[in-house]
Amino acid sequence: MSPIGLAVIGAGYWGPNLVRTARATPEFRLRWLCDLDLERARRSLDPYTSVRATASYEQVLADPEVAAVAIATPAATHFDLVRAALEAGKHALVEKPLTATVAEGEKLAGLARRSGLTLMCDHTYCYTPAVRRIRDLVQSGEIGNVQFVDSVRVNLGLVQPDVDVLWDLAPHDLSILDFVLPAEVTPVAVAAHTADPVGTGHACLAYLTVWLSTGVLAHMNVNWLSPTKIRTTVIGGTRRTIVWDDLNPSARLMIHDRGVDLLPAGSLAPDERRQALISYRTGDISVPALPEKEPLMSVMAEFAGSITEGRPPLTDVGAGLRVLALLHAASRSAEQGGVRIPLQMEASR
Amino acid sequence: MSPIGLAVIGAGYWGPNLVRTARATPEFRLRWLCDLDLERARRSLDPYTSVRATASYEQVLADPEVAAVAIATPAATHFDLVRAALEAGKHALVEKPLTATVAEGEKLAGLARRSGLTLMCDHTYCYTPAVRRIRDLVQSGEIGNVQFVDSVRVNLGLVQPDVDVLWDLAPHDLSILDFVLPAEVTPVAVAAHTADPVGTGHACLAYLTVWLSTGVLAHMNVNWLSPTKIRTTVIGGTRRTIVWDDLNPSARLMIHDRGVDLLPAGSLAPDERRQALISYRTGDISVPALPEKEPLMSVMAEFAGSITEGRPPLTDVGAGLRVLALLHAASRSAEQGGVRIPLQMEASR
Amino acid sequence: MSPIGLAVIGAGYWGPNLVRTARATPEFRLRWLCDLDLERARRSLDPYTSVRATASYEQVLADPEVAAVAIATPAATHFDLVRAALEAGKHALVEKPLTATVAEGEKLAGLARRSGLTLMCDHTYCYTPAVRRIRDLVQSGEIGNVQFVDSVRVNLGLVQPDVDVLWDLAPHDLSILDFVLPAEVTPVAVAAHTADPVGTGHACLAYLTVWLSTGVLAHMNVNWLSPTKIRTTVIGGTRRTIVWDDLNPSARLMIHDRGVDLLPAGSLAPDERRQALISYRTGDISVPALPEKEPLMSVMAEFAGSITEGRPPLTDVGAGLRVLALLHAASRSAEQGGVRIPLQMEASR
Amino acid sequence: MSPIGLAVIGAGYWGPNLVRTARATPEFRLRWLCDLDLERARRSLDPYTSVRATASYEQVLADPEVAAVAIATPAATHFDLVRAALEAGKHALVEKPLTATVAEGEKLAGLARRSGLTLMCDHTYCYTPAVRRIRDLVQSGEIGNVQFVDSVRVNLGLVQPDVDVLWDLAPHDLSILDFVLPAEVTPVAVAAHTADPVGTGHACLAYLTVWLSTGVLAHMNVNWLSPTKIRTTVIGGTRRTIVWDDLNPSARLMIHDRGVDLLPAGSLAPDERRQALISYRTGDISVPALPEKEPLMSVMAEFAGSITEGRPPLTDVGAGLRVLALLHAASRSAEQGGVRIPLQMEASR
Repeated sequence: MSPIGLAVIGAGYWGPNLVRTARATPEFRLRWLCDLDLERARRSLDPYTSVRATASYEQVLADPEVAAVAIATPAATHFDLVRAALEAGKHALVEKPLTATVAEGEKLAGLARRSGLTLMCDHTYCYTPAVRRIRDLVQSGEIGNVQFVDSVRVNLGLVQPDVDVLWDLAPHDLSILDFVLPAEVTPVAVAAHTADPVGTGHACLAYLTVWLSTGVLAHMNVNWLSPTKIRTTVIGGTRRTIVWDDLNPSARLMIHDRGVDLLPAGSLAPDERRQALISYRTGDISVPALPEKEPLMSVMAEFAGSITEGRPPLTDVGAGLRVLALLHAASRSAEQGGVRIPLQMEASR
Repeated sequence: MSPIGLAVIGAGYWGPNLVRTARATPEFRLRWLCDLDLERARRSLDPYTSVRATASYEQVLADPEVAAVAIATPAATHFDLVRAALEAGKHALVEKPLTATVAEGEKLAGLARRSGLTLMCDHTYCYTPAVRRIRDLVQSGEIGNVQFVDSVRVNLGLVQPDVDVLWDLAPHDLSILDFVLPAEVTPVAVAAHTADPVGTGHACLAYLTVWLSTGVLAHMNVNWLSPTKIRTTVIGGTRRTIVWDDLNPSARLMIHDRGVDLLPAGSLAPDERRQALISYRTGDISVPALPEKEPLMSVMAEFAGSITEGRPPLTDVGAGLRVLALLHAASRSAEQGGVRIPLQMEASR
Repeated sequence: MSPIGLAVIGAGYWGPNLVRTARATPEFRLRWLCDLDLERARRSLDPYTSVRATASYEQVLADPEVAAVAIATPAATHFDLVRAALEAGKHALVEKPLTATVAEGEKLAGLARRSGLTLMCDHTYCYTPAVRRIRDLVQSGEIGNVQFVDSVRVNLGLVQPDVDVLWDLAPHDLSILDFVLPAEVTPVAVAAHTADPVGTGHACLAYLTVWLSTGVLAHMNVNWLSPTKIRTTVIGGTRRTIVWDDLNPSARLMIHDRGVDLLPAGSLAPDERRQALISYRTGDISVPALPEKEPLMSVMAEFAGSITEGRPPLTDVGAGLRVLALLHAASRSAEQGGVRIPLQMEASR
Repeated sequence: MSPIGLAVIGAGYWGPNLVRTARATPEFRLRWLCDLDLERARRSLDPYTSVRATASYEQVLADPEVAAVAIATPAATHFDLVRAALEAGKHALVEKPLTATVAEGEKLAGLARRSGLTLMCDHTYCYTPAVRRIRDLVQSGEIGNVQFVDSVRVNLGLVQPDVDVLWDLAPHDLSILDFVLPAEVTPVAVAAHTADPVGTGHACLAYLTVWLSTGVLAHMNVNWLSPTKIRTTVIGGTRRTIVWDDLNPSARLMIHDRGVDLLPAGSLAPDERRQALISYRTGDISVPALPEKEPLMSVMAEFAGSITEGRPPLTDVGAGLRVLALLHAASRSAEQGGVRIPLQMEASR
């Protein structure tokens, strides 16, 4: 089977990674790197390559050898670019967030459905071996029922010119949450506290609380001003607790057989009960061996697979829409001083 | 000068630590360990000691050799015990939280003021070499203006029978915040999100947001269910950022010359401005040498010093009242689903 | 049963720890703390205690209520003190190293044997939960055959006035090695490279290589000049490898299912063999939950148990003698520029 | 100026890294990737590239557009390949170790000298920002006189088919040692203890002791069987001590103002002296900000710079020869059970 002709759109921060991984993916044949700034596109290709630079998206879409596009441009442009791609009969991979508004995202979802083309969201973290394993651990019941989710994603900026820290960093944690939770556990409300202590014009740090349908809290701490880089997520369960430290290559996942149990009250006298009811497990920790695989290579493979097999990708437009709805609700909460915003998530998972 | 006669009240979790450190403090002469459960008091004294156990607080207060008491009993009992001590003419050191209600705390404050006796709050963390240094760094202006405060205090249990995690753990972070901030920076509002996923009857994890008068957010994450123990506080400043990791004895404090600066806009064209205005410092880190001194020894020394010198202790009843007001507001916020509760803090610092 | 009357001899660095743990051990009744420097003995007892200080060892040995002594004095004095104790019919616990010379140690061993009294070496590390578990893992065959042992015990001073770093720190690693290895695996030779770059008059850093009867190398790095404190031991086995990091309370022991296997050569062509023969296991890590128990409390319990039950203690005089022989051979090697010194260890384990 | 035509020789483990970095270095124009296994060369180039694969070294050397070669083949082939390159008038960059024997290395050094061509050793670690900074700290006197060097370079495999762990890993530490020490401090002797507990046919772990002309010990621990990856070097100085942890991106270098000082004896009585003479510094730690720059990019830039400017490269053939001499002496020591092998290093630095 001949490779799928591909174009990468956008030569900014992320585009070159798409170029590099597309080149290393045999299922694709990369033909174009397109950027409004032609010089930038050229610079990010080395002089040895046969991949062509262009500033014309029309030229890319008109190329019959191009069957798919991978879009890494600012979010505000996603709607127009993806729509044009789908209308030109091209499959599309699009960076997060899906679009600027939920309405736009839903239009694209409809367009993709009717066209039969693949529309995939690049929720890169969902393709890490660690998150794949977390999903298995959660959905198989191995950790029991989820009791809390706590994630921290902080480092020293890039302070972004067009988005705040919530829209820049929280999509990672929200897409991971969406990916690993069982389908029946859905977000029901959101609150966000944000601040811009530097005066950049938008929030540089944010705390996001998501209430799940089970009553559980998922909390996210995102911050562009932290001098240290932290990437951890803790998922507490009734049976086990997962600690994912993405910056610790020697023990990225630790599965703790530790926790607090509530015993059946039985025949205890009332005043004995409270203490007796609680017991602690302080058991072993296991650290599963995980393959060291670049997640973007898996994104490329999944994009190619969903095109070839005519099936929805693992992170489809529905996942993108759910993340988008959470982001919008969080922004609204932040604007209103942190009030709790109820969500109307469709049970579309 | 002869040592100050002391009694420790309460032989539960913390009392034995007061006993041990009081014995090692030459300024004190420990005479009694008092607990309603006489057996418990006896067990926590070894058979070699001349310190006496008693179940009678009256006996303690009646002893003319006792000039001071150190109270480590449940919070609900603090008001009666401290009042009786003050009325008996004894100085008092009391565990956090000061009392069950702000009204009670204010009564004690008045009583102490009129009596001329020392009433000191055992805000132990304020006596660690790390927090002393942080206070110096913040109040001297060395880190510039505070931009954010983020603290995490999580570990596995002890789930407490009579208080939730907010009242158990957050007093540490709130008393530290009160201690290190410049006097003119005061909390103006609080919000708290809590959950009890185990079903213990009160919150086992909580997220607390404190808005400061400068617009800055201080955020606290306290959790009894975390399988790993974390004790970190980050204080971001315009010039430096402090990272305090209390569990890292080789680098408890790291002072990062890293951050985000906003440059004056000058004569830039409007569309150049946003990017040009932001610059990053990624400078050196310095790790100050800190003495290894048990903070409770310093608490004892401060208690003795304030008695002897007739001066207010470093963590006086005012500090206890401010922490108490924050805790009550946080509880109220949690009960109302996380709404923002404005504070009326007296500028009493 | 009434408690065993005990005296602690030596109020220097370690003696106060013996005092503290003896007081907390119900099987003992501590009667004396003895030090030639009476003031030092007094200072290390608090004013509340009924334990008496003395400068007279004779007085201690003459006390019929004293059935056992715990000796924490300089090594050069051990022979005389232990001999006098045994001759006075007292059981003895003695700090490492057992004595100054092997001949002295053997005399004490004979004396103890004939008297039927307990003579126990305080190889404290052998009583940590971690080392107990390592011994189980090694001796049960769970990690397979030992392939290498590598330990690092470095920190900043205390530079000792009377011993070099080899005699100060290596006894810990040598006693652990002696404790965890299967009885049939014995040291056969030793080499040591030492240096005194500060000019203190004796070695401040040393590298010790021990050849075992199986051909395996055990290597120890001890250093008084290291600015960082490290306490790690790696024991590689054919099936598993143990990494013990004594300064990491959250994962003191990690058992790695990782290693290099050699496959049977089978029918491979000669030039395929080398590569094909080697395979890697990169399996899971498990971190066993270990009790947090102060090892010196277990030393005390074992000393009491061996006295009461009339049985040899876990770390008996034989263990002390084997460690002593290794230390002497290491010193000889260092004096001769690092030559390999063969050992004649009796198979006495 | 037009770029320097370059060919990479060897498409094994390291060659692809030379290809990647050469492509990103504007001073070079990569023309060939040469490997006896033409398929392997082809596979390691992607289908987009204009770089050509060949199995013929003759073809490469005959190409007038090729002015320089970068050789990443097994050590045994280095002599022939470099000689042919120099005789064809091409500059050469060669992987460590320089050649199989010192005699071969010296012949190449002579050949390079007479030809006026650049012969550079790829001592990659010397081009890391950390090692550059260490060299500055040591050679500027900022850490005082070196008191000890201790390095650990351990991880799981790759067990090499043609070299032992000493020749595989120790060249890194030896080249760093050679690079950072002041020119007047030279190695005077070597001892090595090695073991092959897996039975691979050559040493899988080794301990290397290097005696320096100042009496100082430099010790290296290299191991292919360690389940954990460690890359640390400690350089103790009379004024400061450097701890380099190459796997800790947030604090790769820590400069400790900690150490042991010996005070002048003055008028102390003899028995007071020993203790009084020693004092401890436990000062601050500083962590310098280091640029994150891939060292192989700097190797390429230095290779280009030395060619263009007709000057010796920073890691010239002399450095390669000194490392080679140490490796041979270490091997000889290991074969003779660890005896100390004196070195006759020319003071050529």
